[in-house]
Amino acid sequence: MIIVMSPNATKEQIESVEKKLTELGFKTHTIVGEYKTVIGAIGDKRHLDTQFFSTLPGVESLVPIMKPYKLAGKELKKEPTIVEVGDIKIGGDEVIVIAGPCAIEEEKSFIETAVKVKEAGAKLLRGGAFKPRTSPYSFQGLAEDGLKIMSEAREVTGLKLVTEVVDPRDVELVASYVDILQIGARNMQNFRLLKEVGMYNKPVLLKRGLSATIEEWLMAAEYIMAEGNHQIILCERGIRTFETATRNTIDMSAIPVIKENSHLPIFVDPSHGTGSWKYVPAMSKAAVAAGADGLIIEVHHDPANALSDGPQSLKPEKFSELMQEIAPVVRAVGKKFNV
Amino acid sequence: MIIVMSPNATKEQIESVEKKLTELGFKTHTIVGEYKTVIGAIGDKRHLDTQFFSTLPGVESLVPIMKPYKLAGKELKKEPTIVEVGDIKIGGDEVIVIAGPCAIEEEKSFIETAVKVKEAGAKLLRGGAFKPRTSPYSFQGLAEDGLKIMSEAREVTGLKLVTEVVDPRDVELVASYVDILQIGARNMQNFRLLKEVGMYNKPVLLKRGLSATIEEWLMAAEYIMAEGNHQIILCERGIRTFETATRNTIDMSAIPVIKENSHLPIFVDPSHGTGSWKYVPAMSKAAVAAGADGLIIEVHHDPANALSDGPQSLKPEKFSELMQEIAPVVRAVGKKFNV
Amino acid sequence: MIIVMSPNATKEQIESVEKKLTELGFKTHTIVGEYKTVIGAIGDKRHLDTQFFSTLPGVESLVPIMKPYKLAGKELKKEPTIVEVGDIKIGGDEVIVIAGPCAIEEEKSFIETAVKVKEAGAKLLRGGAFKPRTSPYSFQGLAEDGLKIMSEAREVTGLKLVTEVVDPRDVELVASYVDILQIGARNMQNFRLLKEVGMYNKPVLLKRGLSATIEEWLMAAEYIMAEGNHQIILCERGIRTFETATRNTIDMSAIPVIKENSHLPIFVDPSHGTGSWKYVPAMSKAAVAAGADGLIIEVHHDPANALSDGPQSLKPEKFSELMQEIAPVVRAVGKKFNV
Amino acid sequence: MIIVMSPNATKEQIESVEKKLTELGFKTHTIVGEYKTVIGAIGDKRHLDTQFFSTLPGVESLVPIMKPYKLAGKELKKEPTIVEVGDIKIGGDEVIVIAGPCAIEEEKSFIETAVKVKEAGAKLLRGGAFKPRTSPYSFQGLAEDGLKIMSEAREVTGLKLVTEVVDPRDVELVASYVDILQIGARNMQNFRLLKEVGMYNKPVLLKRGLSATIEEWLMAAEYIMAEGNHQIILCERGIRTFETATRNTIDMSAIPVIKENSHLPIFVDPSHGTGSWKYVPAMSKAAVAAGADGLIIEVHHDPANALSDGPQSLKPEKFSELMQEIAPVVRAVGKKFNV
Repeated sequence: MIIVMSPNATKEQIESVEKKLTELGFKTHTIVGEYKTVIGAIGDKRHLDTQFFSTLPGVESLVPIMKPYKLAGKELKKEPTIVEVGDIKIGGDEVIVIAGPCAIEEEKSFIETAVKVKEAGAKLLRGGAFKPRTSPYSFQGLAEDGLKIMSEAREVTGLKLVTEVVDPRDVELVASYVDILQIGARNMQNFRLLKEVGMYNKPVLLKRGLSATIEEWLMAAEYIMAEGNHQIILCERGIRTFETATRNTIDMSAIPVIKENSHLPIFVDPSHGTGSWKYVPAMSKAAVAAGADGLIIEVHHDPANALSDGPQSLKPEKFSELMQEIAPVVRAVGKKFNV
Repeated sequence: MIIVMSPNATKEQIESVEKKLTELGFKTHTIVGEYKTVIGAIGDKRHLDTQFFSTLPGVESLVPIMKPYKLAGKELKKEPTIVEVGDIKIGGDEVIVIAGPCAIEEEKSFIETAVKVKEAGAKLLRGGAFKPRTSPYSFQGLAEDGLKIMSEAREVTGLKLVTEVVDPRDVELVASYVDILQIGARNMQNFRLLKEVGMYNKPVLLKRGLSATIEEWLMAAEYIMAEGNHQIILCERGIRTFETATRNTIDMSAIPVIKENSHLPIFVDPSHGTGSWKYVPAMSKAAVAAGADGLIIEVHHDPANALSDGPQSLKPEKFSELMQEIAPVVRAVGKKFNV
Repeated sequence: MIIVMSPNATKEQIESVEKKLTELGFKTHTIVGEYKTVIGAIGDKRHLDTQFFSTLPGVESLVPIMKPYKLAGKELKKEPTIVEVGDIKIGGDEVIVIAGPCAIEEEKSFIETAVKVKEAGAKLLRGGAFKPRTSPYSFQGLAEDGLKIMSEAREVTGLKLVTEVVDPRDVELVASYVDILQIGARNMQNFRLLKEVGMYNKPVLLKRGLSATIEEWLMAAEYIMAEGNHQIILCERGIRTFETATRNTIDMSAIPVIKENSHLPIFVDPSHGTGSWKYVPAMSKAAVAAGADGLIIEVHHDPANALSDGPQSLKPEKFSELMQEIAPVVRAVGKKFNV
Repeated sequence: MIIVMSPNATKEQIESVEKKLTELGFKTHTIVGEYKTVIGAIGDKRHLDTQFFSTLPGVESLVPIMKPYKLAGKELKKEPTIVEVGDIKIGGDEVIVIAGPCAIEEEKSFIETAVKVKEAGAKLLRGGAFKPRTSPYSFQGLAEDGLKIMSEAREVTGLKLVTEVVDPRDVELVASYVDILQIGARNMQNFRLLKEVGMYNKPVLLKRGLSATIEEWLMAAEYIMAEGNHQIILCERGIRTFETATRNTIDMSAIPVIKENSHLPIFVDPSHGTGSWKYVPAMSKAAVAAGADGLIIEVHHDPANALSDGPQSLKPEKFSELMQEIAPVVRAVGKKFNV
């Protein structure tokens, strides 16, 4: 940490900051510049809240030098994390696709969709049983009945299951049914929920919040990891910007930034990321070319009658075509694909 | 709702959309333009999910004509909502100030601060017992011990209490101690938590999410109101933008926009909104001049040693001066003030 | 400047950075931390481009310690700048209002509007002769004919004139007619235009760019000042955010931030800032309460027939009422007003 | 255009809007809903400013149905525009790469770099002679001397030239030297400059503004096209968001959105878009996979000594490797490449 003193800080103020740093266990190193003095504070004190230093008399600003995350970063663990779900390896040399409808609406069509996405090459099945909806008057999901339908689809197809959990009280129930727990964008900083999933031995798909910085996203992963669960898959799903042509703006550069700063695998959700099925193919190929470890794509047997997120869902046939288009791009970047 | 058909939509596609609308109970009215056809769908169907229309063949876009919220809007209730907490009336002709530290750290200093903010003119006391912190390594609050300290402060000063609740499992406990339940910015779309506080007969201070539109914010209020709890105070606390000179950017225009679209009272939090105590006075006066019903201001007896949010906290003496500065502005806009 | 070396930087890389800094005239001061080494570079080298340091092998990041602006900042000049236009003093203890239509459309109505805004208390008259319009098919302004109409309005009313200049080739012409040259938001980083107005002895009203940081805005002022023209009035006019309820989001906190970092006066434009005349009164009062030195407000005799920006224009009578409402707020913050 | 009347609009107000629309040549079609009346206005009146309708008494809002651009859109021209520069075809089935340093600094190294980027497969050479810099104290470019150096490089290598023009007064000069005129992000709404380049018979590379919507970007193209110059290449270079891990956020979804709404070719600039050479490879491959017609990449023989934008420049060897990596991705999406 570097503490920048204001140009008219007094000698006493500078000494007082140095003293406080020493008390907290930092070594200090003071540089007197032409206009300003800066104090270097040496030591790894990420467990301390040091923000208050900026309120000390004569202090202009603080400059953190170390990343605030430890477990999610590369300092302690350099090799990539491979999340294993049965015999599926996420984060390795194979690009993995998760597919399925936004919400589980009914058994027959869900299982039909599951069969089709499996045939097309998907390895995991998504579906929402607990839906966070902007309006209280919208369909909120089938709850446990939805989870039961998912289980049946897994039996029929062998696909592993991913579903969102929205309430700490539901984690145990959801974890008993599915293979990966999803934390949605709106709950990325629902810290109680993060802690709760951190206590289970289940992989977590952690979506980036609508306006979360990459650093805050890794701190959310840190919350889960600090409880002992290190099997995390990050998922970029579009951030909120001023542009309205797409529902969100996919931050594709998050892929190389995460690869540089973290060992965790990263997926992209082109369906929520754009809000329109028309843009899903271009964004799927771009994500894979940029180095994403996988994709999560919405597929619905009848988007025009979907109870949730129809506009961004592909029909199974379109999804199958898309998988064929993605395959050569995956190979062009030197990875494997199930198509 | 208006459905805009694409320029090359066929007659069949147009008729198919009309048919579907009729099935759902809408009356339809079709306008054939030079390039495009648009279909007006008449009827209040806010309980229906109509998003899927945009996926029907030949449809270009949907244009909602009605606001998605009902209870939070002015259609059904035109007069302002007055939230009553004891004999304090929020949303009327008096500007109300809530003050206190970000987190409750220790009994003695908390009560001292309470005494001072009361003397300065605050009518409610804030303090965090459950803290949502970006880092899992930061101080997370005293939990129920914090609530007990708050209760004592209420006994000593008579100030009513406001505190944040972050987990649906805690609502009952927190509601048994305090007078207003606060929903923080990070939880504005934690729909389970919204529903939970909607089931209690306690006023709710609903902070705007970091990147929530005003419409989404009112929809969050709608979630609470749909459960039966209509005592809601909205609180603007700064949105996330590209500017880094302040921690967030206070959207001051949210005040007249809310006043035009909703009957609910609106507060401003200049402390979180700017992230710096130096900017709190200017933003407090601006908020009041713009028509805010109240302010929530962080005050700490020793900001340089605060365990949370020190940089944005005022010392009690500064707060007292600020209240003196706010008073003439309140009167200049024709309202009353407790100073 | 602080140079942060990456955790695995070699001794040679560190020495190489130190050597380069010394060559450029910096004194260096190196701090060896637990994980990283940081090098303090002492000296005021704002005329040098030092960005390239971040590309040197082993460098992780640069942290600037000094503000990039000099003339616009408070280091060299602490007392506020007073811009004088005739006997009007901008930036002192009086709040000044500029009013008038977005575009000059026709002589008679322009002069009538001028007479009315003067009666209401405005001290300067605005009007656009060269209009930057999003569409090439929109009205582009009357050019020199508009400037002539402005001159007549000045003769009739005594009001001083403010108009926008959009092309370096027009500066001489525009400067020969009006009293203050306005640089619009879209041209805030049109550096050639900034340099051109910097060569004239005319005050400049410099609007903040739609997505300009406060630092970039002050750097735009620096461009003008570096050419010798120090008579600059900054004008906040709303930034671009995700919110769509208002055309732009007024960054009200820019007022105290500018007051802390610069000696230049700051105005607010609530008309462009919100895009709706309905929100102009609340935002005008807020701006004054926050410490703005003045306001620039759009007034049109017949907004429903305005060729440009009708939705955000007040009728003269509404403007007159607003001035009466602003007056007590101005006095509440201890300033003077012409009403 | 649809005009939405407010719930309490009177019969007279509705009739008055209908009358005004008829006067302007629209046919009207009125739909009376349960709460609100909406008026459909039929006719292509994009040359009219109809914004003022929102100020008529009783009007709540306007909903445009047609895109504001004509020449840049697909209504009048469905087939893709191919911009020809000598025998290079931009916008067809070949992905084209423009490469070179940010600024031209010196002859010898510039020509060496040109030779190397040609060998690596680039077809056009970029280099800045007139540089728009945030600070007036930064290197501003070599002006005409830079253009001369570019010409020599063209003679030596045969590469076509692209350079930025920042002032309407320079267009003639710059057009006499180079093959493509670039409009930078900061000047995307410098309408005088757009009009000026519209008068020349030279292709224009039009960068997207930092906070420009895709619609505004196409309107900027419309400005140029309205003057007669239809040879435009759009270039996505990152937009401004809250994320700070990258200098800007590349909006990769702009590629399919542009392909859906316009016939103009689109390039991506991964160098400015990310601000870091480390992220250029991932973003280059992503852009090509998403369907970009080309890339513009900064290459500098010695980034650590570049006078401008060193941190985002690749060394020639790295660029050459990148071209080898891009090639299979280009082929995976069915296009040709010069490698």
